[in-house]
This record gives sequence, C-alpha cells and structure tokens, in this order.
Amino acid sequence: MGSPFDVTVADLRRRTSLKWHTYPDDVLPAFVAEMDVLPLDAVVDATTAAVAAGDTGYEPGPNSPRGVAYAEAFAEFAARQHGWDVPVERTRMVPDVMIGAAEVLAVVTAPGDGVVVNPPVYPPFRAFVEHAGRRVVDAPLTPAGRLDLDALDRAFRDARAYLLCHPHNPTGTLHSADELRGVGELATRHGVRVVADEIHAPLVVGDEPFVPTTTVIPDAIALHSASKAFNLAGLKTALAIPGPAADDLRRLPEIVGHGVSHVASIAHQAAYRRGDAWLADVLAAVRSNGDLVAATLADRLPQARWHRPAATYFAWLDLREVPAVASTGADPARLLLERGRLAVNAGPTFGPGGEGHVRLNLATSTGILTEALDRLTTTLAAPR
Amino acid sequence: MGSPFDVTVADLRRRTSLKWHTYPDDVLPAFVAEMDVLPLDAVVDATTAAVAAGDTGYEPGPNSPRGVAYAEAFAEFAARQHGWDVPVERTRMVPDVMIGAAEVLAVVTAPGDGVVVNPPVYPPFRAFVEHAGRRVVDAPLTPAGRLDLDALDRAFRDARAYLLCHPHNPTGTLHSADELRGVGELATRHGVRVVADEIHAPLVVGDEPFVPTTTVIPDAIALHSASKAFNLAGLKTALAIPGPAADDLRRLPEIVGHGVSHVASIAHQAAYRRGDAWLADVLAAVRSNGDLVAATLADRLPQARWHRPAATYFAWLDLREVPAVASTGADPARLLLERGRLAVNAGPTFGPGGEGHVRLNLATSTGILTEALDRLTTTLAAPR
Ligand SMILES: Cc1ncc(COP(=O)(O)O)c(C=O)c1O
Ligand SMILES: Cc1ncc(COP(=O)(O)O)c(C=O)c1O
Repeated sequence: MGSPFDVTVADLRRRTSLKWHTYPDDVLPAFVAEMDVLPLDAVVDATTAAVAAGDTGYEPGPNSPRGVAYAEAFAEFAARQHGWDVPVERTRMVPDVMIGAAEVLAVVTAPGDGVVVNPPVYPPFRAFVEHAGRRVVDAPLTPAGRLDLDALDRAFRDARAYLLCHPHNPTGTLHSADELRGVGELATRHGVRVVADEIHAPLVVGDEPFVPTTTVIPDAIALHSASKAFNLAGLKTALAIPGPAADDLRRLPEIVGHGVSHVASIAHQAAYRRGDAWLADVLAAVRSNGDLVAATLADRLPQARWHRPAATYFAWLDLREVPAVASTGADPARLLLERGRLAVNAGPTFGPGGEGHVRLNLATSTGILTEALDRLTTTLAAPR
Repeated sequence: MGSPFDVTVADLRRRTSLKWHTYPDDVLPAFVAEMDVLPLDAVVDATTAAVAAGDTGYEPGPNSPRGVAYAEAFAEFAARQHGWDVPVERTRMVPDVMIGAAEVLAVVTAPGDGVVVNPPVYPPFRAFVEHAGRRVVDAPLTPAGRLDLDALDRAFRDARAYLLCHPHNPTGTLHSADELRGVGELATRHGVRVVADEIHAPLVVGDEPFVPTTTVIPDAIALHSASKAFNLAGLKTALAIPGPAADDLRRLPEIVGHGVSHVASIAHQAAYRRGDAWLADVLAAVRSNGDLVAATLADRLPQARWHRPAATYFAWLDLREVPAVASTGADPARLLLERGRLAVNAGPTFGPGGEGHVRLNLATSTGILTEALDRLTTTLAAPR
C-alpha cells in the first residue's frame, strides 16, 4: 500500500485551492493547513453521488428526522477514536468551526467582554473574536508550548470566555487531563466559559491521548469538524457540542444553521463513517515525516529548536538561533520565501511569541518534504 | 428533449435535503426554495473532478491570481443575461447571500441602526438583520406586490440601510428601473444605503427584464449567487458586488472570506459558465407550470388571487377568499398540511401582509405540480 501522500507535484499544481495557487511555480508551498493528500474514496463517492442525484438542497434542520445525521456520524467516530460519548441530540450544526466559535462566544458573552486566547495561536482566533465585538485577552503559552495556568488566572480576571485551541495550532500541543482540570477550576472560580476548538483532535501523532475538553470541564462547549483531518476545508461544516452541564446551545439562533452546507455534511459523514483506515495511514505518514524533520534538522540545522507535535501535521520551528536569523533578526519566513523559494507560515502572524518561528506543513510526500527541508536548511544555515 | 424536472418521486425521496426529508411520505412537499430538477451536467462534472483530485482546500483569497475566478464567471454570465458590466476586481466572495448581506449591513450601518425591509419578504431577512444587532423597519409592499415609495419615504427616516429583495421573494416581483430610480432618490435624500439581494435574478419568467440595482443606484451593493437558479443551496457561496460609487467593500473584514467554500465556488463557476441552456429549459418549464396553476385555479378555485411572478419559481397565492379560509380565518398552509397532506410555505412566516397567503413551489414536474394543485384545490374549495 502506497502513502496517502503519493501525489505528484504536477497533480498538486493542477489543484486550484490556496496552497498551490498563491505563489509562482518556483516557490514550494509548505504553508496553510491543506494536505497534499489523495482523497478518501468514501468522500469522493458520497459527494459525487449526492451531486449527480441533485441532492444539493438545504441541510435539514435539527427538527427533521435527518437533522442529526452528521452529529451521529461524528459521535460514532468520536466513540471509536477518543472513547467519547457525544450528546447527539444536543449537538448543533454550524457553517464552519470559526463561524461556530464566534456564534457560540456571542451566546456566552456580551459585546465588549474579554475572550482569552493563548498566543502563539491560529491567527483567525484573534480576528474572529474582534469581529464578534469582543476583546482579545492574551494568556501566552509557556516557552515549552504548554498552557500557563498562572497566566490564565490573571487573564481570566478580565474575561468572560476562553477560546481554547485543543490540540493547539501551531505548536501541536495536546492539553492533558490535569491541565484541563486546572483550567476548569480557574474558569469556575472566575466565571469564565470555555469554548474549545477541537478541529485537530483526530490528528494525534504522538503517544499522548486527546482528552475531550467537555469530559473534564462539564460546562465547556467544543467545536469539531471533519474538514481538517480529512482535508475538506473547501467543503465546510462543523458541530458545536455542549458539555453535560452546558445548555447554552438552546440559545444559539436558528439562523446559524442557515449557513450549513448539505453537500459538505454528506462528505463529512462519509469521512467520519468510513475514514478510519485512511486517517491511520495519514497519521503514520505524518509521524514518519516528523522523523525526517528531526533527523534533517539535527544534522543540518542544529540551532533550530522544536518540540515534536503531539497532534496536528505542523512543525512549529523556533529559528531564532539559526545563523541567518541570529545574525540579522530577520523574519525567517521572509528569508525562506525570498531566498529559498519556500513558503511557510510566518511566526509573527500567530501573535506574541511567534517571532523567529515558522510553521511548516508536514502533510506531504517524503519527496516534497525533503525538498522543503533542503530549501529551509540551505537558506538558514548560512549566515546572511 | 425532456423537461429538467423529469425526476421521479422515488428519486426525489432518495434525496436527503430539507424539501424531501422533513415530512412523512404521505405529504407532498411544495415548500422551501429547492427545485425538483435534474442537475446541470457541467456542475456534476466540475464538482466530481475537484473532489476526485483532492482539490478540496481553501478558496484562494482576493490577492491570489485565482481569487477572482468566481467573480469572472459571474461577470460573463451577467453580461450575457442582463447586459450588466460587473466590476470583477472590486467584487468580494462571501460564504452565502444571507451571511454576506449581514456582513455588508455591518459595514454600512452601526449597531442599533434601522434597516428597512418590505414584508411580506423572505423570513431570514428579518432574522439576520436582528442577529446583526440592527433594528427591522417595515415598509410593506403594496397590495399588488410592488414597492411603496411613500412607505419607503417614511421608513427611511428611521433607517440607515435598506435590504431590498430584487426579484422579490415571495411575490416574484421585478422592480422596474423607474421604481429603483425612485428608491435611489429617497435613499440619497435620507442617507440610507441600499443592499440588494439579487439571488433570484437569473430566474426571470415573465416579459419584464431584470434591472441590476447598482446600474440605477450607483452606491448600492448587490448580492448574487448561483445557489438559487442552479439549485445549489447545499453548496454555498456568493458574491458582494459594489455599485460604481460604493467603495465600502474595502472595509469588509478579510475573515469574511474565511467562510467561503472552494468546492462550491468551483460548482458555481461551472453553472455560470456552462448553464445557460439548462437554465433556459428550467425557466420554460416554470413558465408552463405557471400556466397550469393559472388554468387550474381559474377552473377549480376561482376565489384564489395571485399575480403571475415576473421572476422566481414561486406562486404567492392569496387564499383569503377561498371557501375553507373565508369561513374560518384558518391559516391555509395548516389546512393544506393537515387535511390535504401538501406542504407549502405559510404566508405569516413572511411577516405582515402574509396572512391568508401561501407560497407554492413551481419548480417541479408537471405530474407533481398537478397532484399538488389537486390537493390544494380539493382541500380549499370545500367550506370547512
Ligand atoms: C485551530 C483551527 N480552527 C479552525 C480552523 C478552520 O476551520 P474552519 O474552516 O471550519 O473554520 C483551522 C484551520 O486550520 C484551525 O487550525
Ligand atoms: C431572497 C433570498 N435570499 C437568500 C436566499 C438564500 O441564499 P443563501 O443560502 O446563499 O444565504 C434565498 C433562498 O431562498 C432567497 O430567497
């Protein structure tokens, strides 16, 4: 059996989405959260069948006999993957994770309220919180990329909600049950509601398990979607899943469901129901790509620092000590693009703590990753 | 050549979207804006090819070389269909028409501002305006289903924006150039911005042309999508198109583009580029279904009043004088569902002026429409 990343560069360049359509052909793209992956057959089949049958109308609402189909498919997947008992009947469909997060935050906070985030973090967290008329309050991760309970304690004083990224993008951190328990205690003490973006949960690549936030913090609300783990960012839909003690989703306006794509829901259901083997292959390939990064950096750019991700297909590289950066303080992403013709995500876009870092996408073929690492180490190993 | 509505009830019942999945099998669904239509081959082909190639990542943004592909496809379609010169470079992609309308309203108004709508109107207009933290100000249509400039003049005193439905849902009214000019003068006088939902524009079934709002009101902003005319409600994406004197879309937050579905964009482009003949067949079939409704009502329910729609595939029926309603004042949609096992949209959900009305969906086969009209006339012709 071949790797799920056995896609040629020629095939990838025919794709028309963001990753392979932003830069000229001499730039190798290793930015943005898209995978260079062969699609899951079950998704192709289900989507094709739906469109060919003209089954392209509105997603049935929560009151329809079929309204819970997506939630059911996810619940079965979550039980297998995480041993998690998802409350299907209380789960709500939302257009995508970020719109869902914003709408859930709108339900549990008032305009002007503080919402805590942990930089460096997925850039839309900040933008969506602000767009929803809430205030971003920073509680930076520790240098090791873990939750800082003291920083959270301080930040919670000035906040009503906490937008947790679990697993964390870009660091790939999985928060432990102990850490989540600590968060829950602080949140209760300060009257802060926890909203957990768990979109990367199926992408566990280390030995630690994913612990669903709502199993530790009963009044938390989690967001899930097949879009990240199954590379369906272009077929958007997501779920808002309340913890056993969270009944706020009853107040989520019905029109939030208006933005849900029925065809995306069909695609995601196929992924959740028939994607386990495909996903296991993807995770194995990401793991072995992580080995390649570790070996290459140790060998050719020993000043680069990173923690192997516990989850996600990202490598979050601290490049502040590498020759080309240490000597100039330059943004490594810019050096890589301009001199190395390699596109990675620039650390500073993830907020405070991102300086001197880049996020490298590991979800690609060994050949493409090897070429990316060549460009990266060659560009950065030489002092500028 | 067969009708595009040559779909069997058995096939339709296998669809999993809202129209055929809300009621038990003995209810005939003629509600909601989904068509009982065979899909356009070009859409099936483009969508299947994209998904099979794994081209399911993010839609490229406005800065990408491909960011304007959807706008370009629409501009060519709009030039052919409406003789309209669409400003491709200034057009922005939005997740769907209603989210787009809400985001555009958020740019041109402040929280608490009044936004005028014309009831009876598509119910989400009200809900989305309120969800955006704006106030709904009603300027009802005239009894003939036309814009009432005096009512608008009064309403504009208390408003900063006007959410125009053109063509109008549910009445199928096309606003004339003269009417739009009148609106433009009032809007300028009162400092009100016009946001025009033009999603039904390709569905012109009468002799009057569709006049794009921004060609008459230069600082208006229009919303378009292939989702309605090509039955792609389940593959959502839409465009916000500024008039020549509207430069507000520069202030539309970049994250509004985050919610756009790339696969939907591919499907819509195929529809706009290769859908003219399919659409012409659909319109011909809707027109002849309109003849069937007219003949049947004249014959079997002469107390029913309606204006043939100039656009849309809806029949907006005033049933206040039919025997079963006149004698009881009952909601005809409820009578039809309970006694006739026919599901139509209830007039009161469209707001003031909707009482005693129903919206019947004409986008179906002659056989299904005949059955629907049988149920409708039989149920309502007899006094209760
Ligand atoms: C943490 C996180 N949340 C959300 C998203 C995007 O999800 P959606 O497209 O459903 O909003 C991503 C995409 O990379 C992500 O990393
Ligand atoms: C007037 C009008 N606007 C918008 C929509 C829905 O568009 P979207 O799904 O893109 O929000 C409809 C659907 O029937 C409609 O009739």
